[in-house]
Amino acid sequence: MKTKRKIGEHKIIEIIQQNLTLPDMPVPFGDDISAINIDENTVAVLKTDMLVAKTDVPKQMSLYQASRKAIVMNVSDFASKGVQPLAALVALGLPREFTQKGVKEIACGLDDGAREYGTYVVGGDTNEASDFIVSVSLFGTANKSTLMLRNGAKTGDILAVTGFFGKPSAGLQMLTDKNFKMEGSIEEILLNSVFLPKARLAEGLALGRSGMVSAAIDSSDGLAWSLHEIARSSKVGFLLDSIPIAAEVAEFAQLNNVDANNLTLYGGEEYEIIATVKPEGWNIAKRAVEEVGGQLLQIGKATDKSGVFLDVDGQKQTIEARGWEHFKSQI
Amino acid sequence: MKTKRKIGEHKIIEIIQQNLTLPDMPVPFGDDISAINIDENTVAVLKTDMLVAKTDVPKQMSLYQASRKAIVMNVSDFASKGVQPLAALVALGLPREFTQKGVKEIACGLDDGAREYGTYVVGGDTNEASDFIVSVSLFGTANKSTLMLRNGAKTGDILAVTGFFGKPSAGLQMLTDKNFKMEGSIEEILLNSVFLPKARLAEGLALGRSGMVSAAIDSSDGLAWSLHEIARSSKVGFLLDSIPIAAEVAEFAQLNNVDANNLTLYGGEEYEIIATVKPEGWNIAKRAVEEVGGQLLQIGKATDKSGVFLDVDGQKQTIEARGWEHFKSQI
Repeated sequence: MKTKRKIGEHKIIEIIQQNLTLPDMPVPFGDDISAINIDENTVAVLKTDMLVAKTDVPKQMSLYQASRKAIVMNVSDFASKGVQPLAALVALGLPREFTQKGVKEIACGLDDGAREYGTYVVGGDTNEASDFIVSVSLFGTANKSTLMLRNGAKTGDILAVTGFFGKPSAGLQMLTDKNFKMEGSIEEILLNSVFLPKARLAEGLALGRSGMVSAAIDSSDGLAWSLHEIARSSKVGFLLDSIPIAAEVAEFAQLNNVDANNLTLYGGEEYEIIATVKPEGWNIAKRAVEEVGGQLLQIGKATDKSGVFLDVDGQKQTIEARGWEHFKSQI
Repeated sequence: MKTKRKIGEHKIIEIIQQNLTLPDMPVPFGDDISAINIDENTVAVLKTDMLVAKTDVPKQMSLYQASRKAIVMNVSDFASKGVQPLAALVALGLPREFTQKGVKEIACGLDDGAREYGTYVVGGDTNEASDFIVSVSLFGTANKSTLMLRNGAKTGDILAVTGFFGKPSAGLQMLTDKNFKMEGSIEEILLNSVFLPKARLAEGLALGRSGMVSAAIDSSDGLAWSLHEIARSSKVGFLLDSIPIAAEVAEFAQLNNVDANNLTLYGGEEYEIIATVKPEGWNIAKRAVEEVGGQLLQIGKATDKSGVFLDVDGQKQTIEARGWEHFKSQI
């Protein structure tokens, strides 16, 4: 098995896609989930996402937390499409030396992650591997016409997010470099955003039911990267009038003298939903999310000019297509 | 992440099962596949099985072959339940240094494996990992009442298999120890049973349609182990009147002075279907398999005495519950 040169995740996906025979699919290859028609109106919704502890998990994270997160990151993709997951399967890679207590922690993390979102782990597979690996796959069903895809945004649609960004980036900086600090409850909030992330499933289901969303994506690759993805898929651009910086991130940035915009835009491992909403449906969509205890924040608009920009006093600043990418990233 | 003591795969699965909240499931936990009700008669059928090159793949196997095999081993589980897979997802773990050519080989192996069995790879995920890992998940639908489970065998049912056993065990011995030899076309057959295994999907679908099968399992954990699994799940025993030794394995055993029964019973990574057939339906089931170009070989009967035995001139020899087990195996 010859291996030689570093290539990035996006190039790998491109090569794979070029060499696959793809059937007629109700959801384009590369969206947050895959789908298969099972009857005239219904699709089976499928997702697989693998957590590799070595690259995806800071060393301070417990087996329980890593296993729970592996479920949550898959649920987040379902959430962004407005689909309730019905069942999860889990394939585990475990290093040879492993305690019974460790295995129990993993099982409890998987179960808690699934039960938090109304689903179940119903089967799986265990293997010996060099890394601790949790490969989750999720299944659900959906009405084909109500799925929120990445490619439906139209010029003039309102760009919205389900929460403020940057907490996991700040938390990860504290975990990987002890020069970064924060104290008290804010420290706890930032660290917990890494250790115990939440998926916006209730919000995603509410947005789906509202019928007012033209496109959506989950933000796990970072806010900036995800904005570029939805723009590219929908053939629109975005003009942001504000960056949704979490208050805790603003405090962290000030105390540690770092750029809060950077933490907010170019992070990742963050599980908000980014959606475009038809202007006439804004109040309906916003109310639908608020009724389930969430929030929908307007941050800009879809435009007919490609690219993603921030409006700063009438000047357009470019938001780059950067984010977390496996293989090439240096974290 | 503390790890300490070796525990076997079966113990790991037991601990996980004990700590999961399981819903009311149409197929018991631990069968070859998992299932979820999607309407009154229909279930979604789900399977995940991870290939880890370090432990599951001899070093002579190409990336193409390993990737194809990862699909085939999942298809085999569907085959043993009589279910057509409709879509596959693949999560890849790739070492950091990897060529574009290698990625293309993987994609082609996945695609060929899927297309051979009438299915498609419709999505997935790529990650950096220490090992080369191919974690496949499969989806299909089935009529609940026609699924062939492990737990339906009754005393008096005919025990049958879809082919002769032992070729991958012999092939693997040649690949791991150069003292073992074979020549010409037999060598090629034995090695190809490792490099390019086939799943018995046409046979499994035919058996399912026949309506005459009371229980079935795929033989990927080895013939003996799988017989014990189906016996335990169905609360029956088995009395074999013959061991289905492949002709090539008999020749290999003779030339290399090893026990052909051992190779045949206690191997693994072998993708036949083991089924129990209602006696009155034997001809129907056999003809159904032959009509799709396969074979159904009677090797014994289900009995009310627990355990698995071979009848040797009226004497019962015990067939042990041994087979390939990750973590504890020493191959």
